[in-house]
Amino acid sequence: MNALHLDTVRLSGDGQALVILDQTLLPNEVKYLHLTRLEDFWEAIYSLRVRGAPAIGVAAAYGAYLAATQFPGEDPEALCAFFHEKKEYLNSARPTAVNLSWALERMEKVLLEHKDRLSVPQLRERLKEEAHAIREEDIAISRAIGQYGFELLHPGDGVLTHCNAGTLATAKYGTALAPVYIALEHGMNDLRVYCDETRPLLQGARLTAFEMQTAGVDTTLLCDNAASLAMRRELIDIIFVGCDRVAANGDFANKVGTSAVAILARHYGIPFYVCAPSSTIDPNTPDGRSIVIEERPAAEVTELWYAKPMAPKGVKVFNPAFDVTDKDLVTGFITEKGIARAPFHRSFRELGLL
Amino acid sequence: MNALHLDTVRLSGDGQALVILDQTLLPNEVKYLHLTRLEDFWEAIYSLRVRGAPAIGVAAAYGAYLAATQFPGEDPEALCAFFHEKKEYLNSARPTAVNLSWALERMEKVLLEHKDRLSVPQLRERLKEEAHAIREEDIAISRAIGQYGFELLHPGDGVLTHCNAGTLATAKYGTALAPVYIALEHGMNDLRVYCDETRPLLQGARLTAFEMQTAGVDTTLLCDNAASLAMRRELIDIIFVGCDRVAANGDFANKVGTSAVAILARHYGIPFYVCAPSSTIDPNTPDGRSIVIEERPAAEVTELWYAKPMAPKGVKVFNPAFDVTDKDLVTGFITEKGIARAPFHRSFRELGLL
Repeated sequence: MNALHLDTVRLSGDGQALVILDQTLLPNEVKYLHLTRLEDFWEAIYSLRVRGAPAIGVAAAYGAYLAATQFPGEDPEALCAFFHEKKEYLNSARPTAVNLSWALERMEKVLLEHKDRLSVPQLRERLKEEAHAIREEDIAISRAIGQYGFELLHPGDGVLTHCNAGTLATAKYGTALAPVYIALEHGMNDLRVYCDETRPLLQGARLTAFEMQTAGVDTTLLCDNAASLAMRRELIDIIFVGCDRVAANGDFANKVGTSAVAILARHYGIPFYVCAPSSTIDPNTPDGRSIVIEERPAAEVTELWYAKPMAPKGVKVFNPAFDVTDKDLVTGFITEKGIARAPFHRSFRELGLL
Repeated sequence: MNALHLDTVRLSGDGQALVILDQTLLPNEVKYLHLTRLEDFWEAIYSLRVRGAPAIGVAAAYGAYLAATQFPGEDPEALCAFFHEKKEYLNSARPTAVNLSWALERMEKVLLEHKDRLSVPQLRERLKEEAHAIREEDIAISRAIGQYGFELLHPGDGVLTHCNAGTLATAKYGTALAPVYIALEHGMNDLRVYCDETRPLLQGARLTAFEMQTAGVDTTLLCDNAASLAMRRELIDIIFVGCDRVAANGDFANKVGTSAVAILARHYGIPFYVCAPSSTIDPNTPDGRSIVIEERPAAEVTELWYAKPMAPKGVKVFNPAFDVTDKDLVTGFITEKGIARAPFHRSFRELGLL
């Protein structure tokens, strides 16, 4: 199987169902869910069956379209009211996921723009086109990031990544893994990819190692603890990570542990790149100090995945989902419009990103 | 329960059994094993029911003594031959654990020194005294390390540690946790201890968090990934780690991930201390390059503890048990003879450690 055919999220061939790869079952089972009910779209997003900001956006867009197909009437105004209600419901699945609300707003905007001159069936068709466009744009952005990242790679390079910012997190290609997929398309088959397992949710072990192995890449899994020794042994030539939000000065938030990888990279003199779709660069966030870090339940650390609890009962747990990496540790941000290098505030502006 | 009463390893009150706390069951069950058969001593060491270099040494010493009590004859020479055979067998339980062979050699030396002038019952008594001495010396060394470490602490300090170098790894007090226990004895009750969970074997979650919580210390568990953010937030004032081997120049080997903690500490400007009994300082190892790192099975990362496999089948795994930290990252080595500061080669000599 080609990993790029994994199809994280798409509309079914008959246009009647949202098809998602259930990521909660990976790597032990590759199972696609054909979802038709709004409640099931919501649950799939809420339970991380589909995850990764871009993939969530695509799922929400198709979900909103399918909701509109279930509107029974002929009145465009009534369709808009119906749609708004379903949109709000879907948006509640993961309130902090920016792409979720972004995609839903974009879908609603299309509806409102056309409601006065199109019929209900025509509006539905227009929503379907918009959802497809969101998916196609996501693929194009990922491909462009991959192309720019690929130009940084040399045959035989060891590439370290943290968490999962791969095809499973987007419609296709991913962000941090896109350079590896583009390298494969160019026949560069000898990259070695090292996957931090990424505690506590193990996205590196469950998802990144799975998709890289599926893609036929030389894949090595390691505990987050072992990254320092891997760098010391010169197994790692370059680091690609994804990001959740980039501040205007270049500080950025990503999965917890990313800042540690960046500090190790600086210590060992290894280039550290952040793969950032322009949508993640937030002009309203001046620097990392204003990024709020979500803290998650203790049980993710002490009980999740395990056959029995792995820590003493009632112990306090510090379980931040993200951390902030200082701009000074970043070699460059790889965006779909080019690579931004320090000073980032200026290069973001030059690339038209601020 | 006072954590210092956990009694990792001791001789039973009637002198007939080796009593160990089965650490494979922690933190879910506190269960003591009363072992009398040589095969069971071997298995307890092999299966990490007793672990931590000093604790293994004490267990081996009592195990060797108990083996000698099972010698049926009256001839001292025959006892020596019998003892030698049992010693070699016990030593095979963990061939790379220095303290295991060290304690067993010390026990045999006592036997050989006294075999010509003592009877078999007297020799047994002498072996028992030696085993007790090994245990008492270990406690004294840990206490001295704790005392020197305590002098570095201030009320309310946040202390980060990695893996388990606590009372569970020694006869009592531990090395890296000894300063915390001594602080408690001095009435300093407001330290905050942060325990890296320490993948893949989770000694931080299972053992350190358990013994610190048992000791009544304000204990917080965190994934290894979260240490960087904890330091950034200024939750951590000082770091204590244990060590497995210290080279003559100050490079040292310890549980994988220790070097990452040291690099983070340097980045954030946090003092990083290594708690090192003089026995771990190896004059025959000039620097870290000559320290061989054991690599362990992939399944420790992909399957151990879990309810189901957590990585794709057959994926390669880089699973080193230890890593090497550069001397330049160490603020000081806390030994039972005092604190060694850079240049370490000189200060080790001044403390009589080389």
